[in-house]
Amino acid sequence: MEDVVIRPVAKIPPLRDPILVEGLPGVGNVGKLAADYLKDQLHAEPVATIYSRFFPPQVYVNEDGTIRMVSNELSVHRPKGEKARDVLILGGDYQGISPEGQYELTHRILEFCHGLGAREVYTLAGFAQGHVVEEPKVLGAATSLARVEALTKLGVVFSRTDPGGGLIGASGLFLGIGRLFDMEGACLMGETSGYFVDPRSAQAVLKVLARALRVEIDLADLEAKAQEIDRIAQRVHEVEQHAGEAPGAGPTTPREDLGYIG
Amino acid sequence: MEDVVIRPVAKIPPLRDPILVEGLPGVGNVGKLAADYLKDQLHAEPVATIYSRFFPPQVYVNEDGTIRMVSNELSVHRPKGEKARDVLILGGDYQGISPEGQYELTHRILEFCHGLGAREVYTLAGFAQGHVVEEPKVLGAATSLARVEALTKLGVVFSRTDPGGGLIGASGLFLGIGRLFDMEGACLMGETSGYFVDPRSAQAVLKVLARALRVEIDLADLEAKAQEIDRIAQRVHEVEQHAGEAPGAGPTTPREDLGYIG
Amino acid sequence: MEDVVIRPVAKIPPLRDPILVEGLPGVGNVGKLAADYLKDQLHAEPVATIYSRFFPPQVYVNEDGTIRMVSNELSVHRPKGEKARDVLILGGDYQGISPEGQYELTHRILEFCHGLGAREVYTLAGFAQGHVVEEPKVLGAATSLARVEALTKLGVVFSRTDPGGGLIGASGLFLGIGRLFDMEGACLMGETSGYFVDPRSAQAVLKVLARALRVEIDLADLEAKAQEIDRIAQRVHEVEQHAGEAPGAGPTTPREDLGYIG
Amino acid sequence: MEDVVIRPVAKIPPLRDPILVEGLPGVGNVGKLAADYLKDQLHAEPVATIYSRFFPPQVYVNEDGTIRMVSNELSVHRPKGEKARDVLILGGDYQGISPEGQYELTHRILEFCHGLGAREVYTLAGFAQGHVVEEPKVLGAATSLARVEALTKLGVVFSRTDPGGGLIGASGLFLGIGRLFDMEGACLMGETSGYFVDPRSAQAVLKVLARALRVEIDLADLEAKAQEIDRIAQRVHEVEQHAGEAPGAGPTTPREDLGYIG
Repeated sequence: MEDVVIRPVAKIPPLRDPILVEGLPGVGNVGKLAADYLKDQLHAEPVATIYSRFFPPQVYVNEDGTIRMVSNELSVHRPKGEKARDVLILGGDYQGISPEGQYELTHRILEFCHGLGAREVYTLAGFAQGHVVEEPKVLGAATSLARVEALTKLGVVFSRTDPGGGLIGASGLFLGIGRLFDMEGACLMGETSGYFVDPRSAQAVLKVLARALRVEIDLADLEAKAQEIDRIAQRVHEVEQHAGEAPGAGPTTPREDLGYIG
Repeated sequence: MEDVVIRPVAKIPPLRDPILVEGLPGVGNVGKLAADYLKDQLHAEPVATIYSRFFPPQVYVNEDGTIRMVSNELSVHRPKGEKARDVLILGGDYQGISPEGQYELTHRILEFCHGLGAREVYTLAGFAQGHVVEEPKVLGAATSLARVEALTKLGVVFSRTDPGGGLIGASGLFLGIGRLFDMEGACLMGETSGYFVDPRSAQAVLKVLARALRVEIDLADLEAKAQEIDRIAQRVHEVEQHAGEAPGAGPTTPREDLGYIG
Repeated sequence: MEDVVIRPVAKIPPLRDPILVEGLPGVGNVGKLAADYLKDQLHAEPVATIYSRFFPPQVYVNEDGTIRMVSNELSVHRPKGEKARDVLILGGDYQGISPEGQYELTHRILEFCHGLGAREVYTLAGFAQGHVVEEPKVLGAATSLARVEALTKLGVVFSRTDPGGGLIGASGLFLGIGRLFDMEGACLMGETSGYFVDPRSAQAVLKVLARALRVEIDLADLEAKAQEIDRIAQRVHEVEQHAGEAPGAGPTTPREDLGYIG
Repeated sequence: MEDVVIRPVAKIPPLRDPILVEGLPGVGNVGKLAADYLKDQLHAEPVATIYSRFFPPQVYVNEDGTIRMVSNELSVHRPKGEKARDVLILGGDYQGISPEGQYELTHRILEFCHGLGAREVYTLAGFAQGHVVEEPKVLGAATSLARVEALTKLGVVFSRTDPGGGLIGASGLFLGIGRLFDMEGACLMGETSGYFVDPRSAQAVLKVLARALRVEIDLADLEAKAQEIDRIAQRVHEVEQHAGEAPGAGPTTPREDLGYIG
């Protein structure tokens, strides 16, 4: 078996100077939330399914009893308009589960997208602040100074100190290995607490991305999801307050729900 | 050395639309118990031995002092009757001991079986409920809705919520990677506590499988084994009760016997 | 770099039906002690050095300040006499440090030795009893019943129950993978406590091996080493006794010396 | 993706009998400090960038917001003078993060440097003494007795007992695998406590290396860095003294600063 198997879903038509957008699971699931939402809103069409021995040996069972193997998925949005550029969106269940897997998956997927004409890549991620962030900023990192400047104009914050340890995982490697393919790009990181999934941070990221891609996205559903998380977080907070006053008196904490809402 | 070495035991005659049945060690050893019992009852003949660097570096010593390397084994049952279909049974000592090994072993074995004409696969497994199950149900997952419906008629339960985390390991991958070979199939999971080997759960799985394969299997020996486990479990229970009343007074607990009865 | 690099030390002359003897580090270091002693006593000549990415990334520094990379080493004993058979001896610093490495190293070394004409292999090991063994027996496992019988006549014990978990590591794999090369052989396991290096167990193994190989070995130096270990073990015992009577009163225990005497 | 990607930065002119100097992160960061300082002082020019799936999947963000993937880097110093030899300097962010990665990276880099004409290699490292060392000595290990003697004259200490466990990682492998390329060389190990980065130990190493390479290096900046570390270590010491007298009274300890000063 090949290390990475890329199965085209259908014949792929020539793309118009496509931009790749990557959003896989990670901190606060911000990148995945944003990429999946973008795909839904733009009604992007499936292009290819990616299987790999670098994913867990796992199969999901759908509600109807049918199965699907864990995978990444590449979709395409082909906007109308003579000068419009196509958008490739990469989402999925997992990043590679070993360092070597991370490198190999990123390389193979970039190679495939490069073959489809992609020369530009945006990676979406969360940036863990360790505390609740009311109005998340979007931090950035880019492959060139020109891009740093362009994104600064869109409100992206380039900090001298953050992220101090650099970018770990797919969001970093798609830029770094992208350079080996002469691709340019940037990483958009939404601030988040890092404690639970964060649709509000994903919103912040998508606002910037929409301007960069010149597409329009209705963020209402994502806002609804963010408010749902807010309500649960509030409930957790109350339960914990209560528990502090009378230990053992409160209901079992619903904290663990938070991790699974997506 | 190749990652996976498949050694045919003898020249394999053309098979008649064979169905592959996989049962390797796992939760409650249900899958392995069922596959090994099926092989014995059907007097299936060895077809190939599978060695791999993805198994532990281990050799077993038989009672007569001779050795054999850990392996998986493929056997074939060739029933009489003009329209009968052959059954390939995969059993063995281990699943692959790394995620990559799981993928590679599954892929190579499926490739081999596909070469023998197999287009259909059943995987057998246990489903850990975390508590004793008096009358184990058989849960299912399948590659198509048509199969979900067909198996529902045989008494298989397709739950909206179980297994929530999907299928981990060989029982899932043989279906998932099977799809890459255009194979159809289903996983049959016997409910089990997850605490010890469970011949009763294996019985439940075999009852369904026998109907699906249209073969007849005498389950008497498996029932005897189940009753033996029942007796040991009962003894463990009594010892623990006793220990609760007068700590340290009981004999050493026989609990550890439970894991080794197969 | 190849996974396993086998560097011939000099041009190897045609060998006369050579027998391979493997003794690498393991339980009580019995196998390595025996193989190294055999090599010294028979004045075996170096044949090849084996380097591998499956060994630790480590270089030893000799007493004179020069370095050598961790390796395995193959030597040859070419006895006089018309009908004499040559003996290849494999020793070294490490076994492969991952399961995959174990398989690959064993396969490559067997392939090389098979190319030199070896069709028979003895593996030497310790068998941990968990308690001090005054007069260690030699347990066996073999590739055929004929060999079991022949070795029984030499005093080797073939137990129905030991080793219950089989043979783990090189001593098992050289037999198991040896079968894939149509090689026959046996594993000789000296009983040992498992707590420290055991020259006495190595002696027991060598006595059997010498008869099997029809060579003569003077075991005096190994006996001297065994008595040295006995003295240290005795001292440890006294210190611990003393410490039991007056905790903290004894000198620091010399137990850790035991692991490094070879 | 290749396991190791070596990207030449520019066309490399023929080198004059170049000597390779390796200094990667390790004990006290001594090797990396020394190699980086050497590169700066000699104004060595970049030759090649090395990426690998054996590094962490990580990208650094520069202060200006641009990114670079973790890498090793090879630079060259081409001194004037008819008989002068060129010096290749290998530095970088990481050593390989697995044993196999260590072997493969070392092999590929040596192969590349061998292709550039390198037949001699110095590796730089720290040797952890477990206590503060006021005037660090430089311990050595070499590929030949002649080199041991030559370096002894330069003040290098070859100890019968240190390093007892040998050399682990790149500093050992570049010598050991270097031998497979018929390269000669030595490892220079500066004594260090092992508790924090140690520019003073790096100074000691560079003094020896400068004489061996016949280059001149101004060590003033490294001395300044060493004094900065001394001041911080002194402060840590005072804080801990104080904390001992009145627990909880002192400011939060600045100990963790020590690890990050380079």
